[in-house]
Amino acid sequence: MMTEEDRRFLRIAYDEAQAGFDEGGCPIGSVLARGGEELARGRNQRVQRGDPIAHGEMDALRKAGRQKTYRDTTLYTSLSPCMMCAGTIVQFAIPRVVIGEAVNFGGNEGFLRQHGVEVVIADDPDCIALMNRFIAEKPALWAEDIAE
Amino acid sequence: MMTEEDRRFLRIAYDEAQAGFDEGGCPIGSVLARGGEELARGRNQRVQRGDPIAHGEMDALRKAGRQKTYRDTTLYTSLSPCMMCAGTIVQFAIPRVVIGEAVNFGGNEGFLRQHGVEVVIADDPDCIALMNRFIAEKPALWAEDIAE
Repeated sequence: MMTEEDRRFLRIAYDEAQAGFDEGGCPIGSVLARGGEELARGRNQRVQRGDPIAHGEMDALRKAGRQKTYRDTTLYTSLSPCMMCAGTIVQFAIPRVVIGEAVNFGGNEGFLRQHGVEVVIADDPDCIALMNRFIAEKPALWAEDIAE
Repeated sequence: MMTEEDRRFLRIAYDEAQAGFDEGGCPIGSVLARGGEELARGRNQRVQRGDPIAHGEMDALRKAGRQKTYRDTTLYTSLSPCMMCAGTIVQFAIPRVVIGEAVNFGGNEGFLRQHGVEVVIADDPDCIALMNRFIAEKPALWAEDIAE
């Protein structure tokens, strides 16, 4: 179930994705939140910092810094998590993930659910359109980001 | 099967782990190699940089920078990969992982093998002893690093 708070944080994740697109990067953004409070926002940094592990979710987790626990957090991401990010969600015991879209990339929702993570897919038209545009304009960069 | 080359790179991963220990950090080190050539070495940066995603393996992958492919690489790590790092190995399609030890932490070797990754466990006494000492001396830091 999407709440109003979810919509607000997912919009921030989308804005991060759009900022990444404007920088010439992979347009995927993320927010880590706890009890209605934003801990950090991030976006894919492959192009901007030459950092292959800095997917949107990872960048937000890095920016949030050391946390005693993640068991009371929600992770928002404009695009469904890859296996690196899904593994991280499980390792960090993040209990809830809100995904902007799983049309342009997906497949790890089952893995997350099998590990007890609540997965909400927003099917957000703006998130879908931005990734559509990116994949059409920069297919080689997209292939590199998902190691294909 | 461990080769002489494997022993050499695993020793570098151990030296990185030892350097991390000497800095007051989590003593886990890693090397990414291709065809006998070191691409990067790294070590856990939780304490040193306040970075919770920089496990040893992740730090080596970040330092190696953007790669067109990982399909011809081997990842060395002093300690068996957590779910974040195991997910990353699968996502990046790294075909081979050499693990210093899986006594003090483990459990994701099966996940890796199910995804076609060759897993070699060296059962290295120095790697085991270093983690033993760390876990005994800094149990809270260790618990934080594996989100327990």
